[in-house]
Parts: sequence; structure tokens; C-alpha cells
Amino acid sequence: MKFIHTSDWHLGRQFHNVSLLDDQRAVLQQIEHYLTDHNVDALVIAGDIYDRSVPPTSAIEVLDDFLTKVIQDIGVPVIMISGNHDGAKRLGFGARQLDRSGLHIISGLEQMTTPIVISSTDKPDVYFYGMPYSDPEHVRHFYNVTVSNHDDAHRIMAQQLSEVMDSSKQNVLISHCFIDGAEPSESERTLSIGGADRVSFSHFSHFNYVALGHLHQAQKRGAEHIRYSGSIMKYSFSEQYHNKSMTLVELDGDGKVTTSMIPLTAPHNMRILEGTLSELLEAGQHDEHNEDYLLVRLMDKHAILDPMAKLREVYPNVLHLEKPGMLVGVDREMTQARLAHSELDMFKDFFHDVQGEVLTVEQESMVADIVGALSKGNKE
Amino acid sequence: MKFIHTSDWHLGRQFHNVSLLDDQRAVLQQIEHYLTDHNVDALVIAGDIYDRSVPPTSAIEVLDDFLTKVIQDIGVPVIMISGNHDGAKRLGFGARQLDRSGLHIISGLEQMTTPIVISSTDKPDVYFYGMPYSDPEHVRHFYNVTVSNHDDAHRIMAQQLSEVMDSSKQNVLISHCFIDGAEPSESERTLSIGGADRVSFSHFSHFNYVALGHLHQAQKRGAEHIRYSGSIMKYSFSEQYHNKSMTLVELDGDGKVTTSMIPLTAPHNMRILEGTLSELLEAGQHDEHNEDYLLVRLMDKHAILDPMAKLREVYPNVLHLEKPGMLVGVDREMTQARLAHSELDMFKDFFHDVQGEVLTVEQESMVADIVGALSKGNKE
Repeated sequence: MKFIHTSDWHLGRQFHNVSLLDDQRAVLQQIEHYLTDHNVDALVIAGDIYDRSVPPTSAIEVLDDFLTKVIQDIGVPVIMISGNHDGAKRLGFGARQLDRSGLHIISGLEQMTTPIVISSTDKPDVYFYGMPYSDPEHVRHFYNVTVSNHDDAHRIMAQQLSEVMDSSKQNVLISHCFIDGAEPSESERTLSIGGADRVSFSHFSHFNYVALGHLHQAQKRGAEHIRYSGSIMKYSFSEQYHNKSMTLVELDGDGKVTTSMIPLTAPHNMRILEGTLSELLEAGQHDEHNEDYLLVRLMDKHAILDPMAKLREVYPNVLHLEKPGMLVGVDREMTQARLAHSELDMFKDFFHDVQGEVLTVEQESMVADIVGALSKGNKE
Repeated sequence: MKFIHTSDWHLGRQFHNVSLLDDQRAVLQQIEHYLTDHNVDALVIAGDIYDRSVPPTSAIEVLDDFLTKVIQDIGVPVIMISGNHDGAKRLGFGARQLDRSGLHIISGLEQMTTPIVISSTDKPDVYFYGMPYSDPEHVRHFYNVTVSNHDDAHRIMAQQLSEVMDSSKQNVLISHCFIDGAEPSESERTLSIGGADRVSFSHFSHFNYVALGHLHQAQKRGAEHIRYSGSIMKYSFSEQYHNKSMTLVELDGDGKVTTSMIPLTAPHNMRILEGTLSELLEAGQHDEHNEDYLLVRLMDKHAILDPMAKLREVYPNVLHLEKPGMLVGVDREMTQARLAHSELDMFKDFFHDVQGEVLTVEQESMVADIVGALSKGNKE
């Protein structure tokens, strides 16, 4: 029995004012192709399907088209839970009708204890329990118990599952939380400050497999069978070195679990480039991936007129620019006189950028007088 | 073969800052009870299910619970189209999966030519065609034809249906538009100014029955079998004399159509009351329906301090107050002196309201001096 575990799609995400929906659509096509070409019994999405509770219409369409292809054309059932980015009630509309069609949306705690049973031709049935993202307040209210943090909440939810699950069966848990010790990246929305969001893996260890969402890097937590699939693409520059994938999970029916990573590649990579403007412009000429989404760290030590426009001539998708080079060599003991002098330097750089030539001695003297007069004026 | 035709639910509507959701839930329960007690083959909702394209979560829950009861518990399939208030793509999420469950959401033109076939135990099948609300621009773009107004758009959509429908069958059309000559009420969102929204009934006359939505008063248009069910409750004070209902439609299989109105009653009626404050306060003491949503027209000719608070002591849901009485007797030729005098009158009314007694001659003289001085001051 095989299923695909994925999470953190964040459909509809805007990144530095650029819509990532075309990239997301392309990655979802890779998932479709895999499901078409391979014999897989289910697709599991462990939360954060959308990037926000009221997703844009275009993101709804992308998901709707994907699900129709996977469920109706390819014939693979889909099980998804709501994550902290999703609007649970909104995502869950029609869930009780959709269940019959092979689309299982688990977004309310009342659904948690009813497993989705997936049959396979040659192996025993697998029981999937979905734990929708629920904050401590919600769990406290729903079960009328004391809950002070996410660890409490997940312990209590896991206890609820222990009471109904049959441990002689193969059981899979789907959850969206921050398992203790895992390293977050910038694009995961912070649940809280100071560790109250951390959950111990030990609550989940009695499942045959735990399909986690929330952290964007694929990883196991606490045990081999407790795993994050990671997001389907990079969602921040801090994820530049992640290899994105979905996880193929095989349950052999005797308790043995095998996992493997199926790579996913977004059309635009997300990278950080460092260098001087001239180095970067030169490198860009030969960069096959010059359309990647870039954060550029400009190392030049002098001012440059509109470097973004210059960079975008070769790297059209520079999304963010940092200028750490401008800070290099700045002396903390620098005197006021030195600062005044550096205004003149900046003007000389500017003049050179615009005119392509250096100031004459006469011109420089005039500008120095003007800067001096302005500086004096400011002090009066 | 029997079905219920209803429309214009506007779930999630706010009326003068009051949520109508509890009233809407109560009316939906009446529909549930009817469907439980009577043998009905389908429920048709002709658009404006929600009041806006991004409905509040609470409205989504109400609809979700209703649909689950009707489809799963009572076993009646539901066919709905999107109206001009609905967000078509948002409402249509999962429609292709939901079709299998007995929930048919038709919100895209590509769905229009595929009928929903409803079988009955003793009569021939009925073919339901849903025409989602589509403005001229959308129809023009979808079919790549010239469309200048709503009448053109509906003629073209009806032609598309003529090409696929089998006139030897019993065919029902569901549409959300403004059939020519029908009288709107204030709460229907205006489609356009000057008649470009009007649609001739003649495009639809070849269907056995046309289930319309958009106008809030139940009525036939152009022919007996082309009908608006009206909204499920009143949504503006201009609807105060409407009797709200849903329409039971019976098709006998030989082309004969019988319709009857099944009354629906919201917990709070919507009414307009007219009278002086003292008359209304008196009447309110004996008004069994004093919790209705009210527009009050106060006929008093003198100023009253905080009449809303006084009225709400007996009519807690006064939502809007008009004071036509204050305009009675105002002479267009009134001189400036007369106006100054009436400021004194207003103060006398105010004093009487607050203190429960009239001004003494001395007090009145003092106030007159002050009003005079202020009036003189304003002119300088």
C-alpha cells in the first residue's frame, strides 16, 4: 500500500508582490504526472493548502482543477487537513458530501475520530486519522479541559484518537504542528513566541506513520516514521538550499514502513546572489536560470543609481535588494567632518554614473562649497 | 414528480447592522421540515445563496449544515446556481466532486449544457438545466459573440441550451435574471440603470418550467410556467407586504405543470410603523410582535429627545427612524424671524422633555435673548 504525503502548498501566496500561482500550478502538474504514471492508493495533504483563510479565486480554481484531475481522471482519493494558514470552516464547506466522492477534507475536531479507510489491492486497509490544526484555546473549548499550550492540545487530541483506534490495524496520523526541535524557516507563520507552540513527538509514536505539515523542510522528527514532507516549493529566501519533494510512503502490512523522496521543481528557483553590480551583470549574461526569483546582496562600496533597474535587465525577477557593501568600512568613530566629506563622495559617484565622467577640479570645488553651505544651514 | 423551487437566500446578510442569520436559519428549518414530511424529488435554489462573494464563515456553516441534512439525512438532491450576489468560482469549489453526492452547484457556463437528471418513482425523468448568473461581458467572452445587454446574453445562453436539449423530455430551466416587466424591491442589487438588465421571457418559453431567482416577490412573468419563487424572507422594508414562500412544482409527465406556494415565516417580521411617539409607545404595549424589525415614521411635529431609545423600550428592534412629522407645516416662505422663533420653540420642547415642566416667563425671556444674541452673532 502506497500513498503520497505532501503539505504546505500555500496556494495563492504572494511573494514580494509576485504571485506564485503559476509556479504552484506547474508543481501540482508534476504531482499529477507522478500519480498518473505510478500506482498510488492515496494523496495526503497535511495542511496549509491555501496561504490564507480567504484565498483568491484564482487559487480556488487551481485547487479545484487539480482535485478533479486526481480524483476523477486519475482515480486517486485525496485526504487533507486544514493548517494554520487555512480557514477551517471555509475549507470544509461540503466536506460531508465530498467524502462520498473521494475527497476527504478534515477541518473540524468532530471529524478527527472517524478514520478514512483506504483499501489497496494486495495489502491490508490503512486507517487515516486527520488532526486539523487547532490552537490550544480551540481544544480547551471543544473538549472542555485544561489546555495551556500546543503540547497539551496535541496530547489531548492524541488521547482521543487512542480511544477509538484499533492498534491491530495500520494507522496513519495526519497533523499540522511544530514538533519539538525541528528548525523553522522564515516563511512559516510564527505560531507563538517562546516555545509554547512546540509539540513532543512522543504523543504520536504509536501510529505506523505520521504525515506532518507546517515546517517547510522535509525531515523526520524523533523517529523514522514521524516525518515532515516539506513544502512543495520554496516560500522564502531562507529556504534557498532546501531540496523540495513529496514523500512516497509504503506500508507493507507487517508494520514495515519505507519512505522515499520524489523531487518537485518549481519553474523559478529562489536564490540569493552576492557580488558587485558589475560581477552580477557579467554573471547574468551566462546564467541559464536568470529568471529565478532573486534576493541580491550588492557588495559595491559606492552609491549606484537605480541598481534594481540595471540588475533586472539581466535578472528580470530580482525581488529584493540589499546593500551590505555600503556599510563595509564605515568607521563607528567617523567624525562629522568625515560624514560631510562622504556626501561629496556620493555626489561624485552619482555624477560619474549619470555623466560617465569625473568631476573637474573646478566642479568639485563648487559642489564642496554647496555641500558645506547646506551642512552649515542644517546646523543653524 | 415534485420539486421545491426557492431562491434569494442571501445567507449572511446584514440589515441595518443586524445579522439576519438566526432568522435565516429558522426559515431553512421550515424548509427541512417540509422536505422531511413530504415526498419531494429535488430542491432547486435559483441563485443568491449568499449575500456576497466572500460570505462570513457563519453563513457557510449554516448552508453546510442545511445541505448535509437535506441531502444525507432526508435524501433529497439539491440543484443550485450562482446569482449576482454569489462569487461563482468560490461557490463552485468541489462542484465536480459534489455532483456524485447529490449536491449540484452550477456556477460556470461550461456546466450549463449538462443537465442534472432527476428520477422519480412514478413519473418520467426531469432534466434540469442551470444557467449561472452571467453578465453580458462574461457571455461575450465565453462564446466569443457580440453581446450588448442582458437580453442578448440570455438569448444566446438559451440558444446553447436549445441545441442540446431533447424537447421530448421534461425540461426545467433555472436562471437568475430580471425578466422584463417584473417589479423589483429595494433589496435586489441593481444590475444596471435604464433597462439594460431586462430579459424577455420569450427566450425561455420552450421549457416546461422556468425556476427564476433575483426578484424578491413571488410572481409569474409572461407565462404561468415562468416563475419567481421570491426570497425566503423579507430583505428590505419595501417588501413589508410580501408574503414569503417557496414554490412546490409538480410535473405530471404529460406536460402539465401545477404550482403552489408553501409559506415561509421568519421569526422577525419586517414592518413600517407610523404614528406619534405616544401613539407608538401605547400600541407597543399590546403588540405581540413587538420584536419585529421596524422602520418607524415618527409623525410628531415637535423635537423629541432620543426617540430611538424611547421606542426601543417597547420595540427593541427599531432599525431605522424617519421623522416626516418634523417637516409638516414648514412654510417655504418662512422668514428668518420665524426661523429664529422656532429655535426658541425647539428649546422649549427640549426643556419640557428633560425637566417635565414648561419654561417660566422669565426663563423663556432669557432663552429668547440668548437665541437672539447667537442669531445676531452668526450674521456678523
